[in-house]
Formats: sequence, structure tokens, C-alpha cells
Amino acid sequence: MAVGLEVLQNYHPVRGIRIGIAQAGIKYENRNDLVVFELAEGSRVSGVFTLNAFCAAPVQICKKHLTEADARYLVINTGNANAGTGPQGMTDALSTCEKLAELTGVSANQVLPFSTGVIGEPLPMENLLAGLSPALDNLSDNVWSTAAEGIMTTDTLPKGYSQQVEIPNAESGSSESISISGISKGAGMIMPNMATMLAYLTTDAVIAKPLLDLMCKELADKSFNRVTVDGDTSTNDSCMLIATAQADMAEISSKDDPRYTVVFDALLEAFMVLSHAIVRDGEGATKFVTIEVQQASAVQEALDVAYTVAHSPLVKTALFACDANWGRILAAVGRAGVQNMILEDIDIYLDDVCIVKNGGRAESYTEEAGAAVFAQAEITISIRLGRGDIIEKVWTTDLSHDYVSINADYRS
Amino acid sequence: MAVGLEVLQNYHPVRGIRIGIAQAGIKYENRNDLVVFELAEGSRVSGVFTLNAFCAAPVQICKKHLTEADARYLVINTGNANAGTGPQGMTDALSTCEKLAELTGVSANQVLPFSTGVIGEPLPMENLLAGLSPALDNLSDNVWSTAAEGIMTTDTLPKGYSQQVEIPNAESGSSESISISGISKGAGMIMPNMATMLAYLTTDAVIAKPLLDLMCKELADKSFNRVTVDGDTSTNDSCMLIATAQADMAEISSKDDPRYTVVFDALLEAFMVLSHAIVRDGEGATKFVTIEVQQASAVQEALDVAYTVAHSPLVKTALFACDANWGRILAAVGRAGVQNMILEDIDIYLDDVCIVKNGGRAESYTEEAGAAVFAQAEITISIRLGRGDIIEKVWTTDLSHDYVSINADYRS
Repeated sequence: MAVGLEVLQNYHPVRGIRIGIAQAGIKYENRNDLVVFELAEGSRVSGVFTLNAFCAAPVQICKKHLTEADARYLVINTGNANAGTGPQGMTDALSTCEKLAELTGVSANQVLPFSTGVIGEPLPMENLLAGLSPALDNLSDNVWSTAAEGIMTTDTLPKGYSQQVEIPNAESGSSESISISGISKGAGMIMPNMATMLAYLTTDAVIAKPLLDLMCKELADKSFNRVTVDGDTSTNDSCMLIATAQADMAEISSKDDPRYTVVFDALLEAFMVLSHAIVRDGEGATKFVTIEVQQASAVQEALDVAYTVAHSPLVKTALFACDANWGRILAAVGRAGVQNMILEDIDIYLDDVCIVKNGGRAESYTEEAGAAVFAQAEITISIRLGRGDIIEKVWTTDLSHDYVSINADYRS
Repeated sequence: MAVGLEVLQNYHPVRGIRIGIAQAGIKYENRNDLVVFELAEGSRVSGVFTLNAFCAAPVQICKKHLTEADARYLVINTGNANAGTGPQGMTDALSTCEKLAELTGVSANQVLPFSTGVIGEPLPMENLLAGLSPALDNLSDNVWSTAAEGIMTTDTLPKGYSQQVEIPNAESGSSESISISGISKGAGMIMPNMATMLAYLTTDAVIAKPLLDLMCKELADKSFNRVTVDGDTSTNDSCMLIATAQADMAEISSKDDPRYTVVFDALLEAFMVLSHAIVRDGEGATKFVTIEVQQASAVQEALDVAYTVAHSPLVKTALFACDANWGRILAAVGRAGVQNMILEDIDIYLDDVCIVKNGGRAESYTEEAGAAVFAQAEITISIRLGRGDIIEKVWTTDLSHDYVSINADYRS
């Protein structure tokens, strides 16, 4: 059912990144379910994590290790989230790091653990630990597409992005080529029982760690923190940005560096593609919908309106039905909790078709024009509040019979 | 599909209330779609209304008239919400009041208008105005069940409550009998395209207007403001509490009056039954679910948790599937935005079955015990936060295939 999502076949290797994959039998036999990233020495690693108060054991360990040491390995298992597992879950996540450290000669806190899958069941540690050596045995810089499959849960398709970008060098007049490759997973945003949003974006560019941290937060806020399928946030969501510093270039350490914008924009495209891929593969999705709020007086106000519309079951079912039901959109805007909103200032567009003008049905609007837009697989709903000049976008899906089926039938 | 909802056949007349009903052809021919309440002189009327910023024309007029004069008539049409109708909508709502006032010899601001139905289409004024005389011609104190049907939209069953209560009189040693009768409608909470929560609760008790206002707010906060089907709030929601003062009793003007609690509790039962009826008849509902948050440190905190769980599509689909998926409930609690919540303090019960203890799966829990509770049509999910002693409850339904069908297919 994925909307406009194509499987990427060819990834550019990223200097300083090797990936090993194993079948550890975490939940199912005969599927890749364990992925190890090896990062070259000198790599800089940033991450943003779930805001769920009950974040899973691996997330807690990962955040701690990030502050303690320079990460050299990431270990990701699918099939089990190691969430809601209490002290044993913490012990298991740490043991995984210790074992991988022992096998590779680094310290345990240079290993970052990630888990996705069923919540509330203990990690099958024997299988997991036994899978680490096989994964390390096949480390390669050219197995990105297999890795994208190896972190999937209910995803219907693997999600990847890869690009090479020329970074101009003002001094030499020449340019340096950097690679950006990444993978993500998630198919509800997010289904805590057996899903999680995970994303790993890597580049060989040389970016100072403090700047990378800023960029990771800013990039995630424009992408992964702006997509929603069902409003549910998992206990395991993690988005990692890794710069291996292996490219032949001087370090970028400030936003004032003229190369900064080039790298930022290139990474932004990667973040956008990988985050939108999660929506396109959203559970039961038949539509990829951009909700754009314009003329807001504050970012939070714009987001409040955008998310209220994006999460409205009535708007989502109307999208599924291809019914350009502007009353439902307008009513959702009205209940977003924005103070002193004035109905007569509101305009709403479906793509370029004005459907609401000054708070009422636009005179120029015809059912045919609205139906034509809603028949598309990709739709932009623009809402103009007439209160300022802030613009925010979020991305979402419709609510279909398949969403109910997938989530009602999953454990059966 | 209504869950445990029975149609009330016999209502107690309420002294001072007469109801007239007509077939005005607002949207469909040959159905009762216009209901007029006549209130005896001296009646006290309180109301609470939608918080949607874009409230409909009749709601605006109704609130204004309530502040200006003592209401003598309520006029309710179904089939058209008169919302999103701009200045014409205000004119139409006012014209309705003026016409009814002219026919009955009261002032226009003694008439309160209510509309429910399709949004964004002008009221068919000719039909509506022509229906007023027939409605007045058949005013009766004994047509409550017909009135309950006359305000329905997508409701599958009419919703009513009626009771007689003895009010003790400490001075005389005897007691006075008062009647409480009411009707409500709504089948999503709320579907702005063709629904709205409307409720009319009446009693012949003698209650001072300022106290009645307090009671109306307090009663609605415990009932209509605690039910949710899909989190959508209509532009037309209204809940009216009317005390006709026709009973043979001294006025109750203070909460210190020993009779206050008796009347309050009796009205609370009416509010509970009529608000829960809306959830029981919720679109596609197969379950009636009580979410009870205990041990919260503040009311808002308890409600944030309760509504996050109640609105979680993952919890709602698990309820539909009869899958006692505690991971989804726990994850929803975790993302409710409560500061410094501690996982290890959380216990969760399904009815009397402890499913989560100290943030993890309870040792005593068995899948069979959880499945037995989730197989029931009525379920209480209790969440203990370990932070204080505040308790709040909200009521909701599951999310079923029929919800999607009803809302996706409605306009077709």
C-alpha cells in the first residue's frame, strides 16, 4: 500500500562506515534481524530520541554512552524492543554492548544499542549475543540495501537514501565530493507493540561534533519530528546522524562556513526522504498528505493547528474516502486551541484549489475541483490563519480500513 | 452497534415543559426534524457550549440571548447545522427566533436556537419557518420519546432519561417529588459534517439561577466533558439544563441547602446516562470503555493521561480486537506529556486484573485473564500514576472498521 515509495537499489558507500548483518533468530528464524554499524575512529555521532517518558532500555543506554565516549559501533536488533523490561532490560542492553566491545577491542560505552519489535518481552540474549560474531565477520561497505531490510518490522518496503554532493572549496577553487547514505524504518508513527522509528544517516563529511549536534536536532525537527501516522510515539524512537570525517576536506565547525549550507541542505534532503518514507509506508496508507499552515503568529500555533488537522480521525477518514470535506478540516482548525482565532480570516486550499475563503465555502469552489485533488495519492492541504507570517508543515496519511486491520489483527 | 443502550419508552412529564414536533423537510421528507420546547414563565435556563473557536451561528445567538432575557422557547432543527454559513447564518438563526417569538408573543431573545446536521449549507428557511406553527399546534407534555427521535442525526437509537426523585423537606418532615427528564443526541464526539452533541435536561425543581449555572457547568464537566469518541469537537455542541420551578418546594439557592446534594446527585445520574449514551452509540462502537486515572497529582495531569489513552488509535484498535495489549496503553501513558513521570510507579488494571505492576508486566498476569476482560463489551482501564490522590474518569469507545466505513462513506 506504500504511497509513491520506491526501493533504492544502489547506495554510495560512505568512507568510514562498514555494516555487518546476521540472522540471530531474535523473533523469527531465517531473517536478517541483527545489524552492526562499524564507524571509523574519529567519527562524530549525534542523536535525537523519543520524548516518551518511558523510553526503552537501549535508548537510555545509548544516550548515556553518547555522553561518555566516542562511539565506534551501533548494534540494532529487530523483533524485540527491549522496552517495558525493567532492570533486566538495562542489563541486557549493556551486556550486548559489552560483548560487542569485547569482540572488537573497544570499550563498552563506545557501543550504542538499538532495539525494535515486541514490547514487554525479555531480549533473547543467547541468540542475540551469538549473532554478533557472524555480523562482524561480514562487515562491508556495500550492504546498505540488506541493512535497510534488516531493521524492518511491519514496514512493507525498506527505506533508504543515498547521494553524492560536491562541496565547493573557496580557497582551492576546486570541490570535494562527499557521500550521504542512510536508512530508516517505521510504519506507524509509532506502533509500540512492534515498531519504532529508527533512522541512521551517515556522511563522510568532516563536521565538528558541536555543530553536528545542532544540525541533527534542527534536521530532525524539520523532518522526523514533523511526520505522524497516528500520533502515537514509541518508547524506542531514535534518529542518528553520523559524520565519519573521512572525506578529504577541512572541518566545518560553524554555520558561517560557506560550505555549511551546502552540507545542511544535502542532509536535509536525506532526512526528508527517509522521514517521508515512513509516512508513505504508514499502516494502511493510501494517501501522502502535506498539511501546511501559513500565516501563523508562532511556530507552536502553526504546529497545534497542523497536528490537530493531521490527527483528526474525521479528516483522515475523509481523505481515505476522497471526500473533500472542508467542514471537517475547518472544525479541526477551530478546536486546535489557538486563542482569539477569527473564522473570517481563515482560507483553506487543496493544492491550488481554494475551498474555504474568509471562513466560508469559496464562491469559486466546485465539488468537481475538490474531488479531483482528493482523488490524487499526494495532496497538500494549506491552511492560512491570517495572523502572521510563520509557515510550518507536517506530513501524514489517511485512516483506512487497512489501518484498523493491521493494528487490530497484529498479535493474532 | 450501540453498546448496552436501551430505548427509553416512558418519560415522566416535567411540569412547565411542553414539546412540539414537526416535519419541516429540512433535509429529508417525512421525518420529524423540528422540535420546539416551551418553558413555563419563571423557568431558569443554563447552558454550556462548544469550545470550538468557530462556533456555529445558533450557538452564538443562543449564548447572547441567554444573557439578555429569560428563555421561554427552544427551537431545534436537525439536518442542517447552520455552521460555516457566515453572516447569512446569523440572520437565519435570528429570523427563526423572531418568527417563533411572533407566533408566541414573547421577545425574540427569549427564544434559543439550536441546529445540527450538514455544515456549510444555508438553512432552508422557508421550510423551517413553515414548520414552526405545526410544531406549536401540537405542544404536549407527553412526547419526549418522539422528541428524542426528532433531534437524531447519525444516531442509531434515541437517547433519553427520566426519573422522579423525592426531595426531603426538613421543616415539614415530608418530601416533595420532582421530575427529571432529558434527551441527548450525538454519535461521534463529534462529527462536524453531520452531527453535534446536543442535550436538554429538564426538571421542575426550584433552583436559583446562579446556582443552576454552577450546577450545569459542574455536571457537564463530570459527564459530557468527559466523553470522547474520536476527539473531534463540533461547532454546535450544546448542553442545556432547565429548571422550570413548577414543583411545590422552596427555592434551593445554595450548596449549603441539605436538599442540594439530593438534587445534584439526581441530575448527575441524568447527565451521566445521557452523556454515556452518546459513547455507547459512538460511530462503529463495539465497546464502552471507562479510562480511570488514579493517584494523579493534579486534575489536568489525570485528564492528559486519560485522554491520551482514550484517543490513541493503537489502544482503540487493540480494544476492537479484544487484544489486551498493555504495551500500547503504557506507551500512551508515557507520551501524555506529564513531567517527571516514573515508569516504576505505574500500575495498570483491566477491571480487577492487574496487568502492569511497577511499570512492567505483572507477575500474576496471564493472557487468559486479560483476554477475558477484553472480551467484555464494557471495560474499565485503571491507570495508577503513584503521584497523588486525584482521580479522573473519561469514557470512550474502540476504533472499528465500522467507524472508518461510517465516516468514509457518509457523504457518498
